[in-house]
Amino acid sequence: MPIITLLTDYGLRDSYVAEVKGAILKIAPEATIIDITHEVAKFDVEEGAFHLARSVNYFPEGTIHVGVVDPGVGGGRRSIIIEARGAFLVGPDNGLLAPAAERLGVERVYEIRGDRIPPRRVSYVFDGRDVFAPVAAYLAKGVPPTELGSEIPKYVRLPQYQPRMVGDGVEATVIHVDGFGNLVTNITYDLLDELGVREGCNLRVEAGGEELEIPYVRSFSSVKVGELLALVAGGGYLEISVNQGSARERLGISRGVRLFIKARA
Amino acid sequence: MPIITLLTDYGLRDSYVAEVKGAILKIAPEATIIDITHEVAKFDVEEGAFHLARSVNYFPEGTIHVGVVDPGVGGGRRSIIIEARGAFLVGPDNGLLAPAAERLGVERVYEIRGDRIPPRRVSYVFDGRDVFAPVAAYLAKGVPPTELGSEIPKYVRLPQYQPRMVGDGVEATVIHVDGFGNLVTNITYDLLDELGVREGCNLRVEAGGEELEIPYVRSFSSVKVGELLALVAGGGYLEISVNQGSARERLGISRGVRLFIKARA
Amino acid sequence: MPIITLLTDYGLRDSYVAEVKGAILKIAPEATIIDITHEVAKFDVEEGAFHLARSVNYFPEGTIHVGVVDPGVGGGRRSIIIEARGAFLVGPDNGLLAPAAERLGVERVYEIRGDRIPPRRVSYVFDGRDVFAPVAAYLAKGVPPTELGSEIPKYVRLPQYQPRMVGDGVEATVIHVDGFGNLVTNITYDLLDELGVREGCNLRVEAGGEELEIPYVRSFSSVKVGELLALVAGGGYLEISVNQGSARERLGISRGVRLFIKARA
Repeated sequence: MPIITLLTDYGLRDSYVAEVKGAILKIAPEATIIDITHEVAKFDVEEGAFHLARSVNYFPEGTIHVGVVDPGVGGGRRSIIIEARGAFLVGPDNGLLAPAAERLGVERVYEIRGDRIPPRRVSYVFDGRDVFAPVAAYLAKGVPPTELGSEIPKYVRLPQYQPRMVGDGVEATVIHVDGFGNLVTNITYDLLDELGVREGCNLRVEAGGEELEIPYVRSFSSVKVGELLALVAGGGYLEISVNQGSARERLGISRGVRLFIKARA
Repeated sequence: MPIITLLTDYGLRDSYVAEVKGAILKIAPEATIIDITHEVAKFDVEEGAFHLARSVNYFPEGTIHVGVVDPGVGGGRRSIIIEARGAFLVGPDNGLLAPAAERLGVERVYEIRGDRIPPRRVSYVFDGRDVFAPVAAYLAKGVPPTELGSEIPKYVRLPQYQPRMVGDGVEATVIHVDGFGNLVTNITYDLLDELGVREGCNLRVEAGGEELEIPYVRSFSSVKVGELLALVAGGGYLEISVNQGSARERLGISRGVRLFIKARA
Repeated sequence: MPIITLLTDYGLRDSYVAEVKGAILKIAPEATIIDITHEVAKFDVEEGAFHLARSVNYFPEGTIHVGVVDPGVGGGRRSIIIEARGAFLVGPDNGLLAPAAERLGVERVYEIRGDRIPPRRVSYVFDGRDVFAPVAAYLAKGVPPTELGSEIPKYVRLPQYQPRMVGDGVEATVIHVDGFGNLVTNITYDLLDELGVREGCNLRVEAGGEELEIPYVRSFSSVKVGELLALVAGGGYLEISVNQGSARERLGISRGVRLFIKARA
């Protein structure tokens, strides 16, 4: 029986996540349900998409990922299943699932039809429980997506933040700030390699008028406690960090901030 | 093997929830344990009862619900099992379990006896781990409640907040404010129907001296981002919300506030 | 299939915990994974060790405990498996696992070797996912620790806070402040017994210049709502609490504070 993962902005104070799990287990009592996170900032589709795209490669073949950050619930947006290489993704067609699906490789996309889902009479704003949970449970039980939806040619994508080469450096973006205060940029290991950046180099980082010189190292403890460093962290991206501290607090930088980065002359 | 759900005010920072789960798995290693929430406001029996009552219908037949919001632990209050239609509920006899049990249909109530529970010598204030966890685990393994407790005729109930018809309107109460800032009232879909409120109507809502006119709609996106709306949400109650925002922040209303609501002339 | 528990300082907003779980389930899809907590204060090895030591006795024989509070990740610290009585513990060799392992009884310690773990090329700072998760999953599948590591004679221990008899009293330390605001001391039930402290006694507690007289009771409700009390709580230690309130807020005391406690004359 495959794994079903859940990612939402529901938070953990209310019973919403539990109701989704109950609805899954009513149909697929043997499913293993794993939370990715339920603490996505409310309505922040981009943040949800970031976490989902990071995680999907670490789950076994056949996992079903349910994502619900869904400000348009009950309105005109479509409900979709994306069949990707080795996984299904289920959720609203608002871009949330797209980066994860594209990382795996999109194979087919389906708009969910209502016929397998109990009809609703009263409330139309809890699709996580009332639509996506039963669809995920049926997929877990082996119901093919063609019985749950109708193939469609397109799905909503999110804007991509690609780093841009400028002279001998890169214009990058902070695409996430994690719970430790690490600033995650969109610069990959491969791009660093291309730029000739090697462990032990210093990086020149321009951010918000300020100019910093930050050592590019292998691990946090390569610098003293409280000092800035840059490294490639577990997501495969260059991050700016403070050893046993918070780069967010130190630099006052939040998501979306542009950085200009180059290997120091 | 049935599902065991947990609802507490223990929070997620300490190991308390994990110790409860360990105690269950020692007796019933194959149980599926699902968290409803552990973020109930400390000692807030009413909030816990609200979440539990909302959730129980979404779980499969045979689920065992453990609820622990228990300011009287170690004192004189009884420990009970409620046998309800399709589920058992286990916890303190302080009203926490009552609304959920009544929603399912109460069949029998038992006071837990000590004979199946390891005797305690040192601490008497962690019944979630030391009493309710083993009882739930035995129920999951098929031990009948008559072997774990003695039938009793009554259990503690909570005060009910029923909306009251006043002239051509309803006096209602905010019974919960959720993590999105939605104000959940005690007005059901059926009552709205009786009042002749239809989608597209405006509601006149009086709250704390203020008078508001709020459209009654099907989904958040029926109004512009940042605007007030009213709809029947996933719990079956009328909620006052802001599209992609927080009605709590906008209106400064918290749980217990009285509202007077009528369809606008 | 044994249980795998997880304790980290990763928090629940990011996908880090989920990636660890995915990495476990790829190797051991039938493992039952239980969270102890992920809300340990960032980098706070001592707090993590406290929670882990509290919890291990409540899990079934054969459980595998993964602990990751790991400011030295990627640096020189070793990765270890501790074989203890009835459990394995897996994590960094920085003291985090030691109190839990010693409570169970340490049998053998292994430094993890790299041969069973996929080689890393890009990032060296997510050992929770890249090292400890696969090691725990292999242990869960029955791979003996000798195939995953090499026996070593020593492991890093944490300083122990032992209460000290001074005259007719005890100098104690607040070793934890829980989510309810209870102040957990390092005084055990047995020590209280030795001191002749019985339920109904008053304790004289000196803390930060202040002197308090606090009743030693069996449960919170032995005193009025809002009043101070002392009792032995679920961890087996003397705690100072407020009935339905927070002793932390009342007394302004945090972890590490020294207390002088004696039975009142």
